[in-house]
Amino acid sequence: MIDPAQRIELAIQNTLEQGNGRHCPPLLTQAIEHAVMPGGARVRPRLCLAVAAACAGDANTAQQDAVIADAAAVSIELLHCASLIHDDLPCFDDASTRRGKPSVHLAYGEPLAVLSGDALIVMAFQALGRGAATQPQRLVALLDILGRAVGAPHGIVAGQAWECEQNVDLARYQDAKTGSLFAAATMMGAAAAGADHHAWAALGDCIGSAYQIADDILDVSADPTELGKPVGRDESLGRPNAVAEYGMQGSTRKLRELIDGAIATIPACPGRARLCEVIAVESQRFMSHALDRATAA
Amino acid sequence: MIDPAQRIELAIQNTLEQGNGRHCPPLLTQAIEHAVMPGGARVRPRLCLAVAAACAGDANTAQQDAVIADAAAVSIELLHCASLIHDDLPCFDDASTRRGKPSVHLAYGEPLAVLSGDALIVMAFQALGRGAATQPQRLVALLDILGRAVGAPHGIVAGQAWECEQNVDLARYQDAKTGSLFAAATMMGAAAAGADHHAWAALGDCIGSAYQIADDILDVSADPTELGKPVGRDESLGRPNAVAEYGMQGSTRKLRELIDGAIATIPACPGRARLCEVIAVESQRFMSHALDRATAA
Repeated sequence: MIDPAQRIELAIQNTLEQGNGRHCPPLLTQAIEHAVMPGGARVRPRLCLAVAAACAGDANTAQQDAVIADAAAVSIELLHCASLIHDDLPCFDDASTRRGKPSVHLAYGEPLAVLSGDALIVMAFQALGRGAATQPQRLVALLDILGRAVGAPHGIVAGQAWECEQNVDLARYQDAKTGSLFAAATMMGAAAAGADHHAWAALGDCIGSAYQIADDILDVSADPTELGKPVGRDESLGRPNAVAEYGMQGSTRKLRELIDGAIATIPACPGRARLCEVIAVESQRFMSHALDRATAA
Repeated sequence: MIDPAQRIELAIQNTLEQGNGRHCPPLLTQAIEHAVMPGGARVRPRLCLAVAAACAGDANTAQQDAVIADAAAVSIELLHCASLIHDDLPCFDDASTRRGKPSVHLAYGEPLAVLSGDALIVMAFQALGRGAATQPQRLVALLDILGRAVGAPHGIVAGQAWECEQNVDLARYQDAKTGSLFAAATMMGAAAAGADHHAWAALGDCIGSAYQIADDILDVSADPTELGKPVGRDESLGRPNAVAEYGMQGSTRKLRELIDGAIATIPACPGRARLCEVIAVESQRFMSHALDRATAA
């Protein structure tokens, strides 16, 4: 069986090829490629595929369901990449690096940064529509989950827009900006497999909150070269940060509680035991760096 | 029966209310409202509803089909509004006015202009998913048409990206930037009614090309106060313009030919005769201004 990491890269590559093609403005194609490849940890699509596998039932429908799960995973990752491009723009974070490379607007200019973000948002919905075409009823659910996770009033776009307000509620800001896409990852994994998705929001919420705290810890303590993006941004941009709010000790305690809590929320499903292992390993992978840094700080 | 213009405004208003809500960052809500209300001529959604009505068959399904047609029309208009917000940004046209009001970035700043455009793209796909939930098979077709019309390689985002290239093909640029959303309007009207949409692309293409030429004529000859946006932009931004390419006489001749040609492309359908009348009247409405100006120039 193909490794999940490879499977995600292949599915993303196929989606980009369908979206670009030889009639696409060449610089737009390059800017999109720059933003998406090579990726970061692909933590959201990995989570989506892990939940889809845990919910999978009848082996006869496995191949078709895998196509839908791939589309769900890809759509989440493309929207994540789109949000990074737009968040890095000079009018927001004005970030010069991302994933160890120049940010898209530095490499290709602001116009192509705006447009490659727009194109990726559209491509995400197209990927979902094509991938779930054989199961249109699931498409309705998937589209609804994805739209809520990204748009207004609770999705990542709304999360970013809280940065434009005078009064920001830390919890609502982080739920919308980070949590929403993690909750979408678990819910869409379930929906892609034809399972009821509502019970899966809690797992995504826990992992999303943990991820946000890990990110906040890294922002105050990591080496920018290792991290591949600038550090100390929250303070310089006047943004909420868990370490500023709860202290380093309080933040690491919350982080560990959230990882444990996440496992406890996993609903009954055919592959529950295996999923618990995967979540434990994956959480460790993306949080160990933050915990090491917190200890060193 | 409710007037199509009123019907479109109501459907847009309902969609915005679902997307905003009291938990949305207030400035994002305001920026979206500013961009969408009051609208321009709403020519694309009107075209979509007119085609849907012409394709409508069984009266028993009329109410359900109207909901789907409304969603299709709204999704097209929201994507059009999103493209206007992003096209007006300082890194593109740097336009100070739009529809007789300050452009979104002037009224709310660049961050909210980027985000309100992003939010509208997402909202468009959400509206489609909700509206066509009762007919998921149609949703698959509608989503595919809309995605192609907006994304890469042939949609409006790709059209705008041609402005970032050294070598631009006028036909491909205009097809992508303007034509694609008109073709989507006619095809989605048909798909919303459950009809085969492929035969309806030609009508949208003709009207889109005519509309682009009318827009080019107005850009070189209109009064900016009457038009509600700056004029002379194509020349100052070094963009292709039909009048520069074919002259004023050549452009008006092409415009008239396209209007006549559009009517001829309308496929057989239950409401063909009525649709021919509607297209003639609507074309006259949005083109008379350009033709008057061309005569005066």
